[in-house]
Amino acid sequence: MSKKFKKSPLAPETFPSLPNIKGIRLSAVHSGIRYKDKLDLSLITMDEKTNVACVLTKSSTPSAPVLWCKKIKNFGKARALIVNSGNANAHTGKKGYKTVKDTVDHISKYLNCKKNEVYVCSTGVIGELLKTDIITSSIPKLIEQKSSSWKEVAESICTTDTFIKGAKANCKIDDITYKIVGIAKGSGMIFPKMGTMLGFIFTDFPLSSNILNIVLKDSVEKSFNSITVDGDTSTSDTCLLFSSNTKSLNKPIKSIADKRLKLFRKSLDKVLQSLAQQIVCDGEGASKFITINVNSAKSYKIAKEIALSVANSSLVKTAIAGEDPNWGRIIMAIGKSGESIRQESISISINKAPITYKGALINNYNEKVVAKKMKSKNIEVDINIGSGKEHATVWTCDLTQEYIKINADYRS
Amino acid sequence: MSKKFKKSPLAPETFPSLPNIKGIRLSAVHSGIRYKDKLDLSLITMDEKTNVACVLTKSSTPSAPVLWCKKIKNFGKARALIVNSGNANAHTGKKGYKTVKDTVDHISKYLNCKKNEVYVCSTGVIGELLKTDIITSSIPKLIEQKSSSWKEVAESICTTDTFIKGAKANCKIDDITYKIVGIAKGSGMIFPKMGTMLGFIFTDFPLSSNILNIVLKDSVEKSFNSITVDGDTSTSDTCLLFSSNTKSLNKPIKSIADKRLKLFRKSLDKVLQSLAQQIVCDGEGASKFITINVNSAKSYKIAKEIALSVANSSLVKTAIAGEDPNWGRIIMAIGKSGESIRQESISISINKAPITYKGALINNYNEKVVAKKMKSKNIEVDINIGSGKEHATVWTCDLTQEYIKINADYRS
Repeated sequence: MSKKFKKSPLAPETFPSLPNIKGIRLSAVHSGIRYKDKLDLSLITMDEKTNVACVLTKSSTPSAPVLWCKKIKNFGKARALIVNSGNANAHTGKKGYKTVKDTVDHISKYLNCKKNEVYVCSTGVIGELLKTDIITSSIPKLIEQKSSSWKEVAESICTTDTFIKGAKANCKIDDITYKIVGIAKGSGMIFPKMGTMLGFIFTDFPLSSNILNIVLKDSVEKSFNSITVDGDTSTSDTCLLFSSNTKSLNKPIKSIADKRLKLFRKSLDKVLQSLAQQIVCDGEGASKFITINVNSAKSYKIAKEIALSVANSSLVKTAIAGEDPNWGRIIMAIGKSGESIRQESISISINKAPITYKGALINNYNEKVVAKKMKSKNIEVDINIGSGKEHATVWTCDLTQEYIKINADYRS
Repeated sequence: MSKKFKKSPLAPETFPSLPNIKGIRLSAVHSGIRYKDKLDLSLITMDEKTNVACVLTKSSTPSAPVLWCKKIKNFGKARALIVNSGNANAHTGKKGYKTVKDTVDHISKYLNCKKNEVYVCSTGVIGELLKTDIITSSIPKLIEQKSSSWKEVAESICTTDTFIKGAKANCKIDDITYKIVGIAKGSGMIFPKMGTMLGFIFTDFPLSSNILNIVLKDSVEKSFNSITVDGDTSTSDTCLLFSSNTKSLNKPIKSIADKRLKLFRKSLDKVLQSLAQQIVCDGEGASKFITINVNSAKSYKIAKEIALSVANSSLVKTAIAGEDPNWGRIIMAIGKSGESIRQESISISINKAPITYKGALINNYNEKVVAKKMKSKNIEVDINIGSGKEHATVWTCDLTQEYIKINADYRS
C-alpha cells in the first residue's frame, strides 16, 4: 500500500475480516525489493489436493511470471503462490525469466512439490531486473513463518494502491457451508483484456480444475473484465482461483450443468465484483465511482462494447469529475464505439434523471437538476439503446487532475 | 478561437499568409450563436465548375450536418460551404436536421444553385438545438460581404482552439504553378476514425471529384487519421477538398495513375500533415508534441495500430508530461495493441537515445541521459518491431493537468 498518496475518498471504511481456509497457509514479509518498510513478498502454500484455475493478461508483451503461469496452468494443481510487489519483472528478457525459474526451483525443493505446482506473480515497475537472490534468500523465512493474515498478504501485493482490497462470501450447498475469500490489487493500467491486475481467490468448495476454469473465466468477464480506469492493459494481470479440496461434498460435482454450482457461482461473482469495484474505487485520483449500464442492446457483446467506450472516454470522465452534465460527450462515446445503432432510439439518464429520450433532449430538460444529482460520489449512467434485450454493466471512475499528478512523476 | 484559454506553448508563431484562389470567395461574420464577440459563421462560395471530395466521421451518432454531407457527397459538385462554430447540431433529432435543410434551401435560392451543391458543417457543443433563424438571417450579410480573409474564416470555425490553423503549398505541373490552401480546427475529441475535426482544403489544380476523393482519402489516412489527442471521436468530423477548376491543364488528368498527380499529392500531403500537426499542437493542455514512429512492422496496418496504442495511452502521455523516461509504459502500450509481435525483437529509443534493444534494457543504460532529452518540447519515440519492412508515424501530445482543468468545467 502506497504511503505516498492519501487514501482514496472512495475506499471502504475497513478491510473485511477474512476467515482462514483449511489447507491454505499465508506468509508475508518485507524483503526490500523496492520499498523501505512495506510488506512486499508473500508465499501462500497449499495442501496437496489443491486445484487451481488461471486467467492471464492478453498483452502481447507479458511479464516473465505471466509466461511461466501460461506454461503451467493446464496442469491445474497448485502447492504454492509467490507474489512480490515493487518490480513487475516485465520486459526483462531471458534474465527475467531465469529469476522466475530459479524462484520456482527453490520453492519446489523446499516444499518437495512439482515445479508446475508453483505459481509466480510480480507487480510494480516494468523493465527493471528483479534480483533473484532477494527472493530466494527470503524463502526460508517465508516458509518458517506461515502465520500471516489475509490483510498482511493483501498489503504485500499492493503498489500504488491507497487501500488494501479483500472480499468474502459463503455458500451453503448440500447443508454444508463453504467459504470464498479473495484479495486483489490494482489502481492503474486497468483495462479489461482479462482479469485485471492481481486477484487471488480461495475456496474450500471442492471443484476440479476444469470446472474451476470455466466458472472463473465467466466470473472474470463480469467483474475484472468489466472495469476500466485508464484504458491501459497491464503486462502482469493475473487472476487465480484455488480450491483447497479440504471439505468434501456428498456427491462430487462432475459437470458444469450441476445445479449445485449455481449457488457457488453466485457467491464467486459477489467476491469478484466486490474486488473489481474496490479496484475502481482506488483508480488513481478517483473522486467518483461510475456505473455505466447499457440496456436493450442486441447482444451482451454490443452492450459491453458501448459501455466500455463510454467508460474509457477521457471527455466523459473529466465531465463527471467536474460534475458537468455534458451528456453530448456520452453520445459521442456511444457513437465512437463503432457498434451499429439507431441514434433515434437512444435514451440516456444520469442518477435516474432523464436527459434524452429516443434521440433528442427531453422536453422541459432542466440541466440544474442533473447537475445537482452529479454532486453524488456515485454516478450511474443508464443508456437505453432501444434495439434488443441484452444489457451490460461496466464500472469506472472519473478522471481528475490528481490522476495526472500521480502518473506524471511516479514509478510504482 | 477561445479567449478563455491561453495560447498553446506549441502554437506556431504566426498564421501563414494564404493566397486567394480564383473562383472562391470568403465571408465570415459574427452571428451570436454562442460566443459574444468571436466570428462564428462563414460562407464560402464557389464558381460553377467546382468539384469536391468529402471524408466524414465514422461515428454511429453523427451530427445533422454530417448526415446531410453523407447524402450529397456522391454528387461531387459544390457551390457553397457554410460553417458555424458554437453548436455542433449533433443529437438534435429531426429538428436539428430541419435546421440543416432550411439553411441549404436558403443558400441554394440565394445562389441559384442545386441543394446538393451546398455543404454544411457545425462544430461546438453537442445536443443543443441550433436555431435556424440565427443562421438564415445572417445569410444576406454573408453573401453581400464576400471579402473576408482566410484568417477570418479560419477563426470563425474555432471553438476551444487556442490558435488559428492554416497551411499552404504550391505545385508546378506542366510548367503551371497551382495553389493548395487549407484551414482546420480542432483540439479535443481528436482520434482518427476519419479526417479528424474540420478541415477544408482548396486548390485550383483541376481534378474530377472521383480523383479528388481518392487522393483525399489517402492523404487523410496519413494526416488527420494519424493523430490523436484524447482517443475520442467527434460526431462532426468533416474534411472537404475543393478544386475550383479555374486553371486548366494542357491535358486533363483522367486516371489516378497519371504521373503528374504525384507532385500534387505530395503537396496535398504537406498541407494536410501541417494542419493535422497543428491540431495536435493545440491539444487541450498540451505541453509537448509527440511523434511515434513504428518501424520494421509486418504491415502498415500493424505499425499504425501499435503507434496509436502508444499514442493513446494515458500512462505514456502522463509520463512524457512529467519528463519521466518510464519506458515500461511504452512496452505495456505496445503489448495492449493486441498485435501479434515477438517481444524479444522490440527496440525502443526516445529522441534518438537508445533504451531497449531486442527485448531488454541496453547495457550501460543511463536514465539521466534520456530524462534530459525529454525536457525538449518535441518528443520522438522510435519503436522497432523487428518483424518486417513497413512503418507508420502517428502524432499526439502529452496529457497534463491542464487537460483535466479544461475538460472538467468547459463547454466549447
